[in-house]
Amino acid sequence: MSEELEIRMPTGTDDPLSDAEIQSYRKEIDRLNQVILEAVKRRTEVAQAIGKTRMGSGGTRLVHTREVAIINQFRDELGEEGPALANVLLRLGRGKLG
Amino acid sequence: MSEELEIRMPTGTDDPLSDAEIQSYRKEIDRLNQVILEAVKRRTEVAQAIGKTRMGSGGTRLVHTREVAIINQFRDELGEEGPALANVLLRLGRGKLG
Repeated sequence: MSEELEIRMPTGTDDPLSDAEIQSYRKEIDRLNQVILEAVKRRTEVAQAIGKTRMGSGGTRLVHTREVAIINQFRDELGEEGPALANVLLRLGRGKLG
Repeated sequence: MSEELEIRMPTGTDDPLSDAEIQSYRKEIDRLNQVILEAVKRRTEVAQAIGKTRMGSGGTRLVHTREVAIINQFRDELGEEGPALANVLLRLGRGKLG
């Protein structure tokens, strides 16, 4: 991930971002949205490939210890929203039931 | 994002992934989890910087048209789970209320 753009966090009302800064920060958000989407789509594909093998071999599709570890990792790194994000990724990785 | 690892999707029970493939696919998932976490953390920081400026200038913290566009983009790219993911990102970007 390129991180050339340095992010300045305003501390209060004295040092607001300029309009130009806001514009470039929004572009950075758009870029990060795309990074997230591409990584999520690839993660979904990889997880579904594993799931197809496990189903075919008569195993369960899920490995619960791995799922719990991922949920805990996301909570550690993102706080209370972490598990919600991890659960979306896990649902995508399972794919359609049936 | 490096995409050296080629992903093979089993079509049924005839061509399951080998144990070695499953292991390397799990490593790829771990790597993608980290890519997602880093991008989400940076996105949160950038969004919160914009939000602080907008609050300080007496504006609202949100721009609803931007939020709706992001939710629609995530739905287009990820399907029905897209809006759930977008909403987690938007909540993180708003930060703590108050």
